[in-house]
Amino acid sequence: MPPFRYVQTVRFGDIDHAGIVFYPRFFNYCHIAFEELFGQGEYCRVLDERRIGFPAVHVECDFQRPLRFGDRVAVDVQLVRMGGRSLTLRYVLSKEGDPSGATCAEAKITCAIVNLDTFQSVPLPEGLRRLFEALKP
Amino acid sequence: MPPFRYVQTVRFGDIDHAGIVFYPRFFNYCHIAFEELFGQGEYCRVLDERRIGFPAVHVECDFQRPLRFGDRVAVDVQLVRMGGRSLTLRYVLSKEGDPSGATCAEAKITCAIVNLDTFQSVPLPEGLRRLFEALKP
Amino acid sequence: MPPFRYVQTVRFGDIDHAGIVFYPRFFNYCHIAFEELFGQGEYCRVLDERRIGFPAVHVECDFQRPLRFGDRVAVDVQLVRMGGRSLTLRYVLSKEGDPSGATCAEAKITCAIVNLDTFQSVPLPEGLRRLFEALKP
Amino acid sequence: MPPFRYVQTVRFGDIDHAGIVFYPRFFNYCHIAFEELFGQGEYCRVLDERRIGFPAVHVECDFQRPLRFGDRVAVDVQLVRMGGRSLTLRYVLSKEGDPSGATCAEAKITCAIVNLDTFQSVPLPEGLRRLFEALKP
Repeated sequence: MPPFRYVQTVRFGDIDHAGIVFYPRFFNYCHIAFEELFGQGEYCRVLDERRIGFPAVHVECDFQRPLRFGDRVAVDVQLVRMGGRSLTLRYVLSKEGDPSGATCAEAKITCAIVNLDTFQSVPLPEGLRRLFEALKP
Repeated sequence: MPPFRYVQTVRFGDIDHAGIVFYPRFFNYCHIAFEELFGQGEYCRVLDERRIGFPAVHVECDFQRPLRFGDRVAVDVQLVRMGGRSLTLRYVLSKEGDPSGATCAEAKITCAIVNLDTFQSVPLPEGLRRLFEALKP
Repeated sequence: MPPFRYVQTVRFGDIDHAGIVFYPRFFNYCHIAFEELFGQGEYCRVLDERRIGFPAVHVECDFQRPLRFGDRVAVDVQLVRMGGRSLTLRYVLSKEGDPSGATCAEAKITCAIVNLDTFQSVPLPEGLRRLFEALKP
Repeated sequence: MPPFRYVQTVRFGDIDHAGIVFYPRFFNYCHIAFEELFGQGEYCRVLDERRIGFPAVHVECDFQRPLRFGDRVAVDVQLVRMGGRSLTLRYVLSKEGDPSGATCAEAKITCAIVNLDTFQSVPLPEGLRRLFEALKP
């Protein structure tokens, strides 16, 4: 069982002209999983009250199997590296309930920790450090 | 010839699982036409410097023909009504170059004029009043 | 209690430059509620196996209060009218847990019932008729 | 001067809650540039008539400077590698008219060449080979 899993249904409007999920939307799924791992309402408070943001600075993704309309996509999130002022997470996307457990896509996303007023990097607060440490594989 | 026309290509990612443009994206086309009618960079200045915004308060749209991938959609914009603190525009969407000139969708969108810091309604400034008056059919 | 309610969190990427949910995305929320009311996986089967689709033909929406990042939006769905080959549903959007219960937006969306291969209108199958009848207020 | 440049305005709805372009939408800009480099209407014909598609199999992107509302984003496209059944392109995003010419993001995107009915890889047709060869830096 991975440290954190978020599951959502592929939506009617997520599909592209080739009949599969438009690949930039894989990053939407990853971002929603990121929002969810903070816990209900908490990500919003981190941004709006503590003014801490997490802009992506580097993204890598392998797309191995297409996602299609009606699939349930499971996004498993793991910590890869926690630096002083940045964070790298791995997102493994698969189809929920697929007995093969085959990976559809695997993304590694590094984000900076910044003050949202200045966009200058800041250290990760202690409470959030614990949140991400819990995502160690 | 209508007062203002904006044309764009239907994009690969605009299509839904039924193989046509996902209908909420018709409103994206309308909004982009709205942004464009201010002139290069001007809409942004109205929002960011004058702090005036145009939130939609009422939308009506008839969808008559689907738009498909590769279509060029022409959005013709006309003024329907300019109130003291609101604005109604008509957007007629058709396929550029279609000899029949058939309408694909016709939307009537009313927006309030608000101060973006307070979201309270404000009168439309004179310069913008002239911009929208030029859209009278 | 309304016949069918779907709830989702407003996402980071749903927000526009004015700091509120970009209004075309209200229709995304309505569409996801529509997908959900069929039951898990069922909407997809209706489209892909029975080749029945529900293209929007008319949309009306009043926007009364903005939705913001972190809000939980509740979408209540009611049947307005079931014709031979079309369907009108009302979607009332509010903030889950808002003690005032204030409506943020109210949309009335009419869709045709079509065969997805021909886009010709077809009668609503009996099983789906029952599904929508259960949404009578 | 790069082999191919596509320019578009950052749109009102492209912005996220942090006030910058939501990073998955950088890939939308890249994809639109990809669609455009085929020439007017040609990408659509390649997909729909020749049934050839270009699903992303690997994406890497460095995000160096945020894009904001009202920026004009220039996407420069170069060929990195043309394999038998895949293709790697580099997309450099900057702000049009920025005297520093500073890169905002640089993406390297590899796509497979597939038959859209089977999603099996196929060789790149000769005419398209010439199109991409013209993108050599």
